[in-house]
Amino acid sequence: MIKTSTGNFFEDFRLGQTIGRATPRTITRGDVALYCGLFGARFAVQSSSAFATAIGYRDAPVDDLLVFHVVFGKTVPDISLNAVANLGYAACRFLAPVFTGDTLSATSEVIGLKENSNRKTGIVYVRTRGAKQDGTPVLEYVRWVMVRKRDETAPAPADDVPPLPAAVEPDRLGAACPPIDGAAYDFALAGSPHRFDDYQIGEKIDHVDGVTVEEAEHQIATRLYQNTARIHFDQFAAEQSRFGRRLIYGGHVISLARALSFNGLANAFHIAAINGGRHVAPLFAGATVYAWSEVLGKSELPGRGDVGALRLRTVATKDRPCADFPLKLAVGPTERRTRVTSEQDYDPAVLLDLDYWALIPR
Amino acid sequence: MIKTSTGNFFEDFRLGQTIGRATPRTITRGDVALYCGLFGARFAVQSSSAFATAIGYRDAPVDDLLVFHVVFGKTVPDISLNAVANLGYAACRFLAPVFTGDTLSATSEVIGLKENSNRKTGIVYVRTRGAKQDGTPVLEYVRWVMVRKRDETAPAPADDVPPLPAAVEPDRLGAACPPIDGAAYDFALAGSPHRFDDYQIGEKIDHVDGVTVEEAEHQIATRLYQNTARIHFDQFAAEQSRFGRRLIYGGHVISLARALSFNGLANAFHIAAINGGRHVAPLFAGATVYAWSEVLGKSELPGRGDVGALRLRTVATKDRPCADFPLKLAVGPTERRTRVTSEQDYDPAVLLDLDYWALIPR
Amino acid sequence: MIKTSTGNFFEDFRLGQTIGRATPRTITRGDVALYCGLFGARFAVQSSSAFATAIGYRDAPVDDLLVFHVVFGKTVPDISLNAVANLGYAACRFLAPVFTGDTLSATSEVIGLKENSNRKTGIVYVRTRGAKQDGTPVLEYVRWVMVRKRDETAPAPADDVPPLPAAVEPDRLGAACPPIDGAAYDFALAGSPHRFDDYQIGEKIDHVDGVTVEEAEHQIATRLYQNTARIHFDQFAAEQSRFGRRLIYGGHVISLARALSFNGLANAFHIAAINGGRHVAPLFAGATVYAWSEVLGKSELPGRGDVGALRLRTVATKDRPCADFPLKLAVGPTERRTRVTSEQDYDPAVLLDLDYWALIPR
Repeated sequence: MIKTSTGNFFEDFRLGQTIGRATPRTITRGDVALYCGLFGARFAVQSSSAFATAIGYRDAPVDDLLVFHVVFGKTVPDISLNAVANLGYAACRFLAPVFTGDTLSATSEVIGLKENSNRKTGIVYVRTRGAKQDGTPVLEYVRWVMVRKRDETAPAPADDVPPLPAAVEPDRLGAACPPIDGAAYDFALAGSPHRFDDYQIGEKIDHVDGVTVEEAEHQIATRLYQNTARIHFDQFAAEQSRFGRRLIYGGHVISLARALSFNGLANAFHIAAINGGRHVAPLFAGATVYAWSEVLGKSELPGRGDVGALRLRTVATKDRPCADFPLKLAVGPTERRTRVTSEQDYDPAVLLDLDYWALIPR
Repeated sequence: MIKTSTGNFFEDFRLGQTIGRATPRTITRGDVALYCGLFGARFAVQSSSAFATAIGYRDAPVDDLLVFHVVFGKTVPDISLNAVANLGYAACRFLAPVFTGDTLSATSEVIGLKENSNRKTGIVYVRTRGAKQDGTPVLEYVRWVMVRKRDETAPAPADDVPPLPAAVEPDRLGAACPPIDGAAYDFALAGSPHRFDDYQIGEKIDHVDGVTVEEAEHQIATRLYQNTARIHFDQFAAEQSRFGRRLIYGGHVISLARALSFNGLANAFHIAAINGGRHVAPLFAGATVYAWSEVLGKSELPGRGDVGALRLRTVATKDRPCADFPLKLAVGPTERRTRVTSEQDYDPAVLLDLDYWALIPR
Repeated sequence: MIKTSTGNFFEDFRLGQTIGRATPRTITRGDVALYCGLFGARFAVQSSSAFATAIGYRDAPVDDLLVFHVVFGKTVPDISLNAVANLGYAACRFLAPVFTGDTLSATSEVIGLKENSNRKTGIVYVRTRGAKQDGTPVLEYVRWVMVRKRDETAPAPADDVPPLPAAVEPDRLGAACPPIDGAAYDFALAGSPHRFDDYQIGEKIDHVDGVTVEEAEHQIATRLYQNTARIHFDQFAAEQSRFGRRLIYGGHVISLARALSFNGLANAFHIAAINGGRHVAPLFAGATVYAWSEVLGKSELPGRGDVGALRLRTVATKDRPCADFPLKLAVGPTERRTRVTSEQDYDPAVLLDLDYWALIPR
C-alpha cells in the first residue's frame, strides 16, 4: 500500500464529489503577528484589540485574507497538487469573524469539470467551505484550476461548467461583520477620515508604495497556511520548468495589494466578498509589487446603517508604479467584465485583477 | 478628494503642531516570538515569563526596542514618509513596562524646524510619546529628521532648534522597571555573574559575534512595526536612488547590536533611556554586523537599591570585527560628545553610535 | 575581568562536570506559528488545539523538534561555541509534552572526552536534560561534538568514551504522550488512513516534495531557538572558512525532513525518541532538500493499546529527489547500523541519516 499521496489528477475528480477536511489548523496570535511581519497591513480593526472591541467585535478579528489563505491551503493536497494554473475565484463570501483560538478546516465539492482539447489537462471547479471546530462556516468560495491528467488516454467526464455569478449580491454581504458602533469608530486612530459617502463610483486610487518580494518571505507565508503546492518551494524542480523559478503563490499578491491599499482605503476594514479574481501573470522573487484600486460600485446593506459596501477592483503590478492606473491594452470598457477576456489584453505589468466587496463605516 | 496620503513635506510642519495617533497596534506573544527569530536576544527577563515573574514583573515584559520600533513606526506616515535621512535621537525614556496584550499608539509634537540652506530640505524635530490603550505613557523621545520640501520655493518657518540634553539625568530613569527582588534574580540562569559593581567606567567590551543581514529579515522586521517608509521595501525605486539598494531601517541595526551585546552585558536587562544615537552609515543586506560597547558612566538610582544604571555606548560596525573597538579616525576625546562631530570622523566601518542607559542588578 | 564569553575549549571540559542552565525561554504560540511558517508541518495533533484536546491532550503540544531545538540551543554557549562539527546524537527521549507557556532550560553533564590525535581538537560527549520551570524533565539526549582546543599544547584528560545504546528500548518510550482516545482520533481530519498495523518493517516511503532553503529562513529559525553558534550567522567570517558559506544548523535539516515526512507518515504524530542521527554532509542556502523514510522496526508499548512505535530511518538529501531511496554507495546491509561507517560510504547527495521512534495510533 503506497503511503505517499500524489494528489488527485483530472480524471480522479467526479462531479458532486466531496473532498477534504484534512488537516485542521488553529489560528493563533502568532499567526497574526507573522502575517503582519510578512505584509504589514495597518487596518485598525485587525491590528488593535482595543479598537476592535470598542466598535463591537469581541476581539481583533483575524485578517480576512489570512483566513482565506489557510482555508485555501487546506484544499491544495486534494485539489491542486497537480495543478498547472489556478485560473480564478468567484462567489467568495466571508461568513463569520474568525478569532485567534479558532480551528479552521475545509471541505470542497466538485461542481464542474471540463477537459481541455489537448486531453492533457482539464479544468476542475470546486466550491470550498471553511468552518470552525464547532461547524460554524467562516468562508465559502468557488475556484477553478487547471489540473494535469495522470494518463492522457484516460476517459474524462462530460463537460459540466457551472454558472457563476459575476458578483456577490449586496444582500448576501456582511455576515462576518458584527454591528459596528459608529460613534466609537475613531477615524483619527484608523488613519483616514474617508468613509462610505466619500468614495465615488469610478474613482481611482493609487496606493503609491511598492514592495519587493523575497523568496524567504513568500515561502514562509505559504507554509504558514500549510499550503504544500510544490511549485512555490522547490527550486531544483523549478529549474526544469518553463519559468525556471519558484512561482509565488497567487494569494501572496492579493495580500500584498491589500496591505498597500491601506493608503487610500484605510477604513475599508473588512473584505466581505470576492466577486472574482484573476492572476494575470506570474510573480517571481525580486520583483516589486505596486497596486491601485477603482471603485466599481457602492451599496448599502439591507437593514444596516453602520457600514456600507464598496465594490473595488484592486490591480497589482510588478516593477511598475501605478500613478496612471495600468490595466488593459486598448480594450474597450464593454469587455471589461467579460470572463473570456484573454490575458493578452492586460498591460504586461499587471499581476492581479481582483474584484471584491469591502465594508466601510457610513 | 485625494484619498492617498503622500505624507508631510517640510513646509507642512508647524511649530507646536501635534500629529498622529494612527494606527494603534496590539503587541502579542506572536510579535515577541518573531522579534526573537529576527534578533535572537537572550536577556532572561524578556525571554522567560518564569524569570520575570520571579523577580517582580507581572509577566515577561516586551523587549524595550520592540516597543520603540512600534511607536517609531507609527510616526512614519506623518513625520518621515518624505525623509531623506533620520539624523538622530535624544531624550528617549521608557516610562512603563509593556506586556503582551497592550495596544500602543503614538503622538508627536513638532518642537523644532530648520530649513537647510539649499532650500530643498529642512530638519524637523519632534517629540514622540507612545502610550497604551488606557493612556499610560510607555515611551517618550525626540528625533530629528531631514525632510524634503514639496516645493523648493515654498516659504519656510523661522529656524527654531530646540535645546536637547546631552543625556537623560539618572533621577529620571527607571519608571519602566518595577522593584526587582534581587534575591530572586538568578545570575546563573541569566547567563552571567556580572552585576553593577563589576563594570568600570571606561571599560570596553567586544561582543564578538557577527550577524549577516538578509533582505527578507529587515523587511519582515520593519513591517512587523508597521513602519511603511518606502526606502526599506522598494527595490524598483531604489535602483534610481544614489544607493541603488533598499536601505535597512536604522532601528534594525540597534536591535542587532543590542542582541549581540548580551555577550558581555547579559544582566543589563532593561534599556531605561537612550541619550542619543547616530546612524553613521547606511546598512544594506548582505553585510555582517558586529558590535562593541564602552561603559561611559554609572549611576545609582535615587531610592533604589535593586538596580543601578550603566551608561553605555554601543557601536555597531559592518564587515569589521570589533576586537580593537573601532570608532573614530584620529579624533581627540574632547570632541567625542559634540553634536557637530561629522560623519567623516568615524571609522568607515561604523554604522551606529548609540548612547543609552541600561539597568542592571546591584 | 573579561565580560565576554568565548565559550569552552576542549581542555576546559572535565568528566562529570555539570554545565548550563542559562538562559531560560518561554515557548509561546508565537514560536509555534513561526516554526510553522518556517517548516510547514501539518501533523494534526500539533496543528490543531481542537484535534489535540479531542484525543486527550490538554492543548496542542509544542512540536517535539521545536522543543529539541530550543533545549539544544541553550547548550551552545557552553558546549559548542568552539565546535568544529556536531558529530552525532543518541539516547534522546522526550519525557513530557510541552505546551505554550512552559519555560524551558537545559543542563548538560560531560560524560565522555577524547582528544584527537592531531591534538588540535577533541570530542566532548554530553548528556543534556531539558526541563520546565517547575523542574519537570521534558527531554534528555546525548550528543558528541568535536571542539577546538584553545592551546594545542594544553594537557587533555584521559580518553573516556561512554557506552551508548544503539537504540532506545521500546519500554522507555511514550512518557511525553498521554493516553490517546483512539475513537476520537479522526483519521480523515489527520490526513491519512494509515495506522500502526499498516506499516511493514522494511517499507520505504518517498516523501516526494522538495523545499529550497533560504539564508533568511535558517537564520530566523536558528535565532528562534536562541542558538548562537556563529557559523550559522556570520558570512564575513565564513568567507575565510573552508566552505566560504554560512553553514545551516543541522537541526534545520531534521525539521525540514520531518515536515516533508507528513506525506506518508501523517499519523506518526509524536517523536518519542531519537536513537541516533548523523549529519552526513553540510547544507548551504540555495539547495533543495528532499527526504525518504524506511520502517526499521515496530514495537508495541508495554501497557498501551492506544499507540504503537515505528522505528524510522529518515534520510534527507540535497538537490536529489528520493524516488529511488538514495543512501549508501555499495555498502553491505550488515554495516548499516555501525557507528564506524564513514561518511565516504554515503551517496554524496545525502545530508542526514536519522534513526528515531515515532508513535502512531494502533
